[in-house]
Amino acid sequence: MSGTLKRLENTIKERRVSDPALSYVAKLRAKGRTKIAQKVGEEAVETVIAAMQGDAKGVIGEAADLLFHLAVLLNDMDLSLDDVLKELDRREGVSGIDEKASRKAE
Amino acid sequence: MSGTLKRLENTIKERRVSDPALSYVAKLRAKGRTKIAQKVGEEAVETVIAAMQGDAKGVIGEAADLLFHLAVLLNDMDLSLDDVLKELDRREGVSGIDEKASRKAE
Amino acid sequence: MSGTLKRLENTIKERRVSDPALSYVAKLRAKGRTKIAQKVGEEAVETVIAAMQGDAKGVIGEAADLLFHLAVLLNDMDLSLDDVLKELDRREGVSGIDEKASRKAE
Amino acid sequence: MSGTLKRLENTIKERRVSDPALSYVAKLRAKGRTKIAQKVGEEAVETVIAAMQGDAKGVIGEAADLLFHLAVLLNDMDLSLDDVLKELDRREGVSGIDEKASRKAE
Repeated sequence: MSGTLKRLENTIKERRVSDPALSYVAKLRAKGRTKIAQKVGEEAVETVIAAMQGDAKGVIGEAADLLFHLAVLLNDMDLSLDDVLKELDRREGVSGIDEKASRKAE
Repeated sequence: MSGTLKRLENTIKERRVSDPALSYVAKLRAKGRTKIAQKVGEEAVETVIAAMQGDAKGVIGEAADLLFHLAVLLNDMDLSLDDVLKELDRREGVSGIDEKASRKAE
Repeated sequence: MSGTLKRLENTIKERRVSDPALSYVAKLRAKGRTKIAQKVGEEAVETVIAAMQGDAKGVIGEAADLLFHLAVLLNDMDLSLDDVLKELDRREGVSGIDEKASRKAE
Repeated sequence: MSGTLKRLENTIKERRVSDPALSYVAKLRAKGRTKIAQKVGEEAVETVIAAMQGDAKGVIGEAADLLFHLAVLLNDMDLSLDDVLKELDRREGVSGIDEKASRKAE
């Protein structure tokens, strides 16, 4: 996994036991999985809207928010971004991803 | 960026000029940004639903679909996952991510 | 409730016991609540995208799809659009809706 | 259109020219279509989550929020819920809705 994603996950792990008054991650986790999942959905909607506006800076910012909340959601389920990357690896092979996606699209 | 994400982006780059009849990426790009953005929204909804079901395998699969389509969307805007990771780096510093996210939540 | 919404709900009620091979409602219900909820999320994303494109005809079509699938979801939970209208009535009074919404926005 | 939806739309119409400091509708409109569309997406996500939890009261509340914000979005595009009901009527006829939806699902 990239240094960035590793640092992101480590921060989330450290913060999940922090004081909800001081840490956004701790606050989010205190509200429960429902709230975390809701944020993933919301950030995706904001990413879609920024893309429709052709707003490059906006898409980068919203996609970063989306990845961040996705990492918090995975962590809440005792999963990690690494599990997702391994799944992408599993599908890989030059034609792999494309074929898998293609089958899904039928 | 991790090897996985680099391979993912390279595959997407190669495929964007492929025959839409053979490649899912090429087909998606041929349909335009609207369709790609729509898929990002849909995969996020499926991730949320799998999380609400406590379905670990489902969340991993849907999150992989979400990352894949997010990478296609970024590519369609001449951006990359690396731009998103850099934005996450920029926010970083142990308290960085958390503070930034926290400000947003106010 | 308006004649249109009443007819919509009646059709959904009749169709929920139809042959899934012949009826979209029956097919959707056979797939379960997860699939119905997913469609509600997807149609909302499509409504958002059409709105961002300023596509009036598209927004009307997607909003119709959204209302239709929302009615199927409500029916699957033994609820109805009428329950939702009653909730809107409850919040009403000229200032009512606005105040309630406003409180939520804090 | 039902009395409820007519009152809802009238309230929205009256409020769109109100003081954003006093009215949620005016505040939302002042933020622009992007923000209104975003709220439609968010309320749909919350409806989906409540449905996955089997939370009948939650679904009714979120669906009411969804309809409310959809009405604000339509109003912002100089459309109305009535246009959406007319589209549903157009598709109607016992088999109409189902067939139309079915074709879309292919």
